[in-house]
Amino acid sequence: MQKKIAAEFLGTFWLTFGGCGSALLAAGFPMAGIGFAGVALAFGLTVLTMAYAVGSISGGHFNPAVTIGLWAGRRFPANEILPYIGAQVIGAIAASAALYLIASGKPDFTVGGFVSNGYAALSPGGYSLEAAIATEVIATFFFLFIIMRVTSPSAPKGLAPISIGLSLTLIHLISIPVTNTSVNPARSTGPALFAGVVYLEQLWLFWAAPIVGGILGALAARTMDGRATSSL
Amino acid sequence: MQKKIAAEFLGTFWLTFGGCGSALLAAGFPMAGIGFAGVALAFGLTVLTMAYAVGSISGGHFNPAVTIGLWAGRRFPANEILPYIGAQVIGAIAASAALYLIASGKPDFTVGGFVSNGYAALSPGGYSLEAAIATEVIATFFFLFIIMRVTSPSAPKGLAPISIGLSLTLIHLISIPVTNTSVNPARSTGPALFAGVVYLEQLWLFWAAPIVGGILGALAARTMDGRATSSL
Amino acid sequence: MQKKIAAEFLGTFWLTFGGCGSALLAAGFPMAGIGFAGVALAFGLTVLTMAYAVGSISGGHFNPAVTIGLWAGRRFPANEILPYIGAQVIGAIAASAALYLIASGKPDFTVGGFVSNGYAALSPGGYSLEAAIATEVIATFFFLFIIMRVTSPSAPKGLAPISIGLSLTLIHLISIPVTNTSVNPARSTGPALFAGVVYLEQLWLFWAAPIVGGILGALAARTMDGRATSSL
Amino acid sequence: MQKKIAAEFLGTFWLTFGGCGSALLAAGFPMAGIGFAGVALAFGLTVLTMAYAVGSISGGHFNPAVTIGLWAGRRFPANEILPYIGAQVIGAIAASAALYLIASGKPDFTVGGFVSNGYAALSPGGYSLEAAIATEVIATFFFLFIIMRVTSPSAPKGLAPISIGLSLTLIHLISIPVTNTSVNPARSTGPALFAGVVYLEQLWLFWAAPIVGGILGALAARTMDGRATSSL
Repeated sequence: MQKKIAAEFLGTFWLTFGGCGSALLAAGFPMAGIGFAGVALAFGLTVLTMAYAVGSISGGHFNPAVTIGLWAGRRFPANEILPYIGAQVIGAIAASAALYLIASGKPDFTVGGFVSNGYAALSPGGYSLEAAIATEVIATFFFLFIIMRVTSPSAPKGLAPISIGLSLTLIHLISIPVTNTSVNPARSTGPALFAGVVYLEQLWLFWAAPIVGGILGALAARTMDGRATSSL
Repeated sequence: MQKKIAAEFLGTFWLTFGGCGSALLAAGFPMAGIGFAGVALAFGLTVLTMAYAVGSISGGHFNPAVTIGLWAGRRFPANEILPYIGAQVIGAIAASAALYLIASGKPDFTVGGFVSNGYAALSPGGYSLEAAIATEVIATFFFLFIIMRVTSPSAPKGLAPISIGLSLTLIHLISIPVTNTSVNPARSTGPALFAGVVYLEQLWLFWAAPIVGGILGALAARTMDGRATSSL
Repeated sequence: MQKKIAAEFLGTFWLTFGGCGSALLAAGFPMAGIGFAGVALAFGLTVLTMAYAVGSISGGHFNPAVTIGLWAGRRFPANEILPYIGAQVIGAIAASAALYLIASGKPDFTVGGFVSNGYAALSPGGYSLEAAIATEVIATFFFLFIIMRVTSPSAPKGLAPISIGLSLTLIHLISIPVTNTSVNPARSTGPALFAGVVYLEQLWLFWAAPIVGGILGALAARTMDGRATSSL
Repeated sequence: MQKKIAAEFLGTFWLTFGGCGSALLAAGFPMAGIGFAGVALAFGLTVLTMAYAVGSISGGHFNPAVTIGLWAGRRFPANEILPYIGAQVIGAIAASAALYLIASGKPDFTVGGFVSNGYAALSPGGYSLEAAIATEVIATFFFLFIIMRVTSPSAPKGLAPISIGLSLTLIHLISIPVTNTSVNPARSTGPALFAGVVYLEQLWLFWAAPIVGGILGALAARTMDGRATSSL
């Protein structure tokens, strides 16, 4: 169990450090910045690389919505949910602290939104609460649907990290302008603690919507197995 | 059969939501937008991820031109063509509705072309009808040729979603400026319903050209097996 | 043999249509253009996808420098070199004609360099003849070295198209500004026929340098097998 | 042993030629330049391609921090460290010389920083010494952690070059603005010799930080095996 906790801590640190770090440090660099496409690739590669590295230890969730979704899909035991989520949230906070240390080493640093997620006034493109909810629910629905399916016993297991990681890239390619893309409550929590109270006030949505979407996606995936009890 | 229909519905929803959604929401974002390259990547990753997720259920077509092409290549039964195409078109329309809901959550939203496909005055680069036909026929020819070959019994099956998905990325890298890239009548139908009558008037081309190209590509692939009856 | 010829024709058509086509149609599109990075990705994906599609038929060369290099590395019979190169050059010319048809469907079309390769005044960045030779020789050296190694009997064969395709992407990421990147005499020949006489006068370099580099790379790869006679 | 040296020389040449070359020649090209995202992809693909090509010969390190880290993780014998590092440094210098030859073939060439690594005044974004140390240590920690894990006996070996190469891409997506990204003392040494004394004066950091981070990452990975002696 200790190794699983360490794996989830390191994996979520890497997800937040790599995904949010690329957004914070490199997305808007003058002329040569990586833009949203580079950030999308970075998020996906954090999961691809660490899922290959520690997937055999902890399953490679790095995301409370994944942990809860897999429980809903009967792939994960209820009694491990809390330790997993604890390790994920602490990993994301530690990564955000490391990013704060690095980013503040730039003379003209201002914390701003610190790549937090947000809607309405805090949405990168000014998208409404309703648009944010729809985006996060749909995206996490498919994220969990894909995760459940490509890790099902019948799937070619060695390749699952590729499709899971790249599905996270895809989700970011679509939705950074809407909410800065969460689909992961831990990733949302870390930066919000540094960005301040207005971002923390919106944090509830980035716990609620990914978890709801993830549960529905996992249940939908179960119906494909022909052993599901969901009515979806 | 019910599961196949559900798989094709979800896959085509994801293709349209992810591909058209990235174009609609993220391609032109000021400074950090993902551009056509990001959209190309998104389209490819929708197919890569969902082909891994549900390929074992429905074959992972998500595209009427693929369904008809595979029938022409004797890989798909005639009696399942209509249900497949129905699920695909409904999936694309549902995804377009979801995108409309999200996109209209931006204060300054105007529907515009809603990433519909088009030629002449409606082509992103102003390309002619002839250029549009040539592009769509050639691209879908190779799309089906590749699909047929990499899913042939002799090919390494576990990797087919990678080459199929990335071939769709490649096709978009070439042809977004010409027609906004269809090669998929379902993807063309969904957004056109929201973009209005001028786009619907051009929709015929994005059914005809991909289907013709797809049939020819599948027949060409069959000649490579040495068991073909095609004269191509 | 007929199937091999068809495979090389189609593969080189796709390489030229996809690689040069993305450069011609999409690289410089205002605001959302794919740039050199998108072109680099497109070239690599043409090879990745068609190597998976027809690699089992013809080996998937699509490039005279590859065919000659593999012969130098004792992987390809001398008597098939000419038919292969013939199919490749004709495929590249046919693809260039198709691209000309499409590109000229844009009202303000001018042929310009038609994405031909060039040095000195015809180099995208104004690089000298010497820089062009060094770049093409080194790039093709490593291209053949990698191809020889990842298709050696001891290598995991199913993945070779991934590393070969992505090595072509890498080569383009480096060298488009120098020569527009050849490493492939067929790809150089097709567009030059449409770009006109000044480009044809430089075509010799894009046959000579890739072939020299390719032969040296293949010989170097053989020394790694411990069965080589080369003194490199 | 001779083959291992040759493999490490060629691999580090390719890493430096491809990664630094793409940055030097193509990153800032007007309008169509590949930017930091293209450079990040190039660095990763050098490792992905050459790890597939020569990984079976030398292990495919191409990086003194990897060689020392793997020794710390008990995967590499002490007596081969110096020859490996020698081959890597010479490979990087040779590649930098080749790049100098090519880059100086452009009429308006000035050597500038020659894509050397740097901090404070020499950091692309003006990041402090402390930020540079944190970035390089953390990035190399995870780089070695991932390498150790995905090449462990229990991992699917054929896919390790994909996750290792893409983790290097990810690291560059995050950290080019901070230090121009080293995580590899050989890659840092080559260009610095051409960039001049101010860059050489900062070279110590790009040996020290990656080696420290790499050792810690390898030790952390060992604790995951349950056979480690590290206290980390």
